[in-house]
Amino acid sequence: MEGISGLLEAVRKKVPLVHQITNYVTVNDCANATICAGGSPVMTDEIGDAPAMTGFASALVLNIGTANARVVDTMIACGKAANDAGAIVVLDPVGVGATEFRTSAVDLILKKVEVGVIKGNAGEISIMAGEAGKVRGVDSAGGSGATAAEALAKMTGTVVGMSGPVDYVSDGNKTYILSNGHETMGRISGTGCMLSSVTGCYVGTKGASVDAVAAAISAFGIAGEIAGRDAGGPGTFKPLLFDALYNMDGKAADRMRKIKPCTTSM
Amino acid sequence: MEGISGLLEAVRKKVPLVHQITNYVTVNDCANATICAGGSPVMTDEIGDAPAMTGFASALVLNIGTANARVVDTMIACGKAANDAGAIVVLDPVGVGATEFRTSAVDLILKKVEVGVIKGNAGEISIMAGEAGKVRGVDSAGGSGATAAEALAKMTGTVVGMSGPVDYVSDGNKTYILSNGHETMGRISGTGCMLSSVTGCYVGTKGASVDAVAAAISAFGIAGEIAGRDAGGPGTFKPLLFDALYNMDGKAADRMRKIKPCTTSM
Amino acid sequence: MEGISGLLEAVRKKVPLVHQITNYVTVNDCANATICAGGSPVMTDEIGDAPAMTGFASALVLNIGTANARVVDTMIACGKAANDAGAIVVLDPVGVGATEFRTSAVDLILKKVEVGVIKGNAGEISIMAGEAGKVRGVDSAGGSGATAAEALAKMTGTVVGMSGPVDYVSDGNKTYILSNGHETMGRISGTGCMLSSVTGCYVGTKGASVDAVAAAISAFGIAGEIAGRDAGGPGTFKPLLFDALYNMDGKAADRMRKIKPCTTSM
Repeated sequence: MEGISGLLEAVRKKVPLVHQITNYVTVNDCANATICAGGSPVMTDEIGDAPAMTGFASALVLNIGTANARVVDTMIACGKAANDAGAIVVLDPVGVGATEFRTSAVDLILKKVEVGVIKGNAGEISIMAGEAGKVRGVDSAGGSGATAAEALAKMTGTVVGMSGPVDYVSDGNKTYILSNGHETMGRISGTGCMLSSVTGCYVGTKGASVDAVAAAISAFGIAGEIAGRDAGGPGTFKPLLFDALYNMDGKAADRMRKIKPCTTSM
Repeated sequence: MEGISGLLEAVRKKVPLVHQITNYVTVNDCANATICAGGSPVMTDEIGDAPAMTGFASALVLNIGTANARVVDTMIACGKAANDAGAIVVLDPVGVGATEFRTSAVDLILKKVEVGVIKGNAGEISIMAGEAGKVRGVDSAGGSGATAAEALAKMTGTVVGMSGPVDYVSDGNKTYILSNGHETMGRISGTGCMLSSVTGCYVGTKGASVDAVAAAISAFGIAGEIAGRDAGGPGTFKPLLFDALYNMDGKAADRMRKIKPCTTSM
Repeated sequence: MEGISGLLEAVRKKVPLVHQITNYVTVNDCANATICAGGSPVMTDEIGDAPAMTGFASALVLNIGTANARVVDTMIACGKAANDAGAIVVLDPVGVGATEFRTSAVDLILKKVEVGVIKGNAGEISIMAGEAGKVRGVDSAGGSGATAAEALAKMTGTVVGMSGPVDYVSDGNKTYILSNGHETMGRISGTGCMLSSVTGCYVGTKGASVDAVAAAISAFGIAGEIAGRDAGGPGTFKPLLFDALYNMDGKAADRMRKIKPCTTSM
């Protein structure tokens, strides 16, 4: 597998423009995470403006956290613009399954747009994987997480990143289990959204691959571990997370990385 | 009166889902304040999505800080959904009285939705209380603040929380005067909004009562005092405020609490 | 030229209300920068609400970073309200030239509203200045930056602030070259937007003049230098930037200030 350091250097050298149509709760954190990871963020969701902006981007992140009907239309228009321009589309299906609106929005995006990466939490990925993602029998090596990620990757032809205390990344054939991170990442709003932004930087630089998504997840998790050393709580954790992401030493990150291939087969 | 510690533990145990339709200026701070207070935030304002989300929530916070016509419609739809589901509605009437739009929005919400708590600053509560809230004669124990809070509580059948250097909480019968807090809370954007989120956590756990609202205000004010000890200014104050809220020791908070019953009668 | 200290005291004494229709990425930072600079922020973009709010304000900041069609309409309505009320309009033409939507929005605002200050980065100001802003011959004293700022100021009858590692401020006759600041200001999202907010405070207090805009740019750049001393990266830089802006000693700022008149003539 490819180390973090090579990809990290490539991102920093390219400074990929990552167009993000994301929720208004965490959008500032997404912008700063993008910069700290080595990319350049741009946010716009006006349908008369956004697809033109997508045309300049290396990746497009679609996050439905606070999407409304107007914005879903823009997401689809930008998704098509990204497909035309060769930009990688990263979908963050926040809350899919919780409401019909969200489920329909995700279905529509997947139908109209060629998505390169789906990045969600365990609940979201499992719901999207449906029956195919249910675990059959005992599975000590990967558990239901790996099964769900693999199943969704096969169903959609995407790379799936599933985040949580343990993360799984799969393209349906190759699956990694990642276990960097810090518990405080679950105590601040927006870590999932920020990870999608960082993922946009990596796949916008190297294309949508298991290795690129895994490197993004590892880099973000390692930044969390470093931030957790000095943080006094969730409030001071966030600035330290940005510092750690920005100051990351690729070689040191490779040494801190916890990754193993998943030996489960479906 | 009930201490902070018991309620704080109850909130942390329940982790109430607090649906918030709030302004885009302070929404990220509201999300993080909710988490640090022990709740779980969800923000959505699309009318096709939001009422379904309200159905899962223990409290609904409506903050009109940057509301537009579309969002006011969603607020009312979600308010009705909250009433149907038994979730407590907290209204933060930001800037009511300053413009006709805001005053009309507040009137409409109060007409269409059964609101449990109104949480505003002195100016907002006084304007809403109108003539009934004006002080008659000298009132050393509570001043016009207590009078306005009591009057508005009686008029609307809600619990009223009025924040400022001194805070008042009243259900029209029982009124508390609270005086925790730190001056830097007035030097950052969003403390009023965050307090409404924290209030949502408390009333979402224990129902709309004077004691629950008073505990939320005290907890937030005490977190401010703790943050103020080490902050170098408004910038470093905010992360420390989140840390203090998250790390709060209920027993220590009970000892720091400044609360007294208001002996004023109207 | 006027020092920072006198203007800073005037802002802190007046606490000007600065109405801001700005992007949802950096709006919270804009609110906090406004407070720390000595002003009072209000954000609203509902056309039924916002022009009434503008009527109370000393300055109106229009930032098109994430503008949509609805919001551009509100910007124009508020711009007219500002002109009627004598509030200074500050335009931040984020991304002008990058898309047709943005260019049209800026053109429309300049046509319908009397703008007092245009504050943008080098790319934005140069694009708006067009042919007239191109450097003719060698220009060691000011370079193309000064030429573009002067040209745009003359074309539009505004004061132009052009931010970057070196900043230029011009009203078409008098031009200053400013060089305070810190490289980390380019590593966080929103410094340009925050500077427009701070500029709103200064011109809302003293009117739109080269001296007022230059003082705002200098104050913000000096705050950045102070923040940069102790920051561990972009994450910890931002809270320290707010602290430095809030705690700024005007006399010390005058001593740190790097400003010189531009001797270029077009």
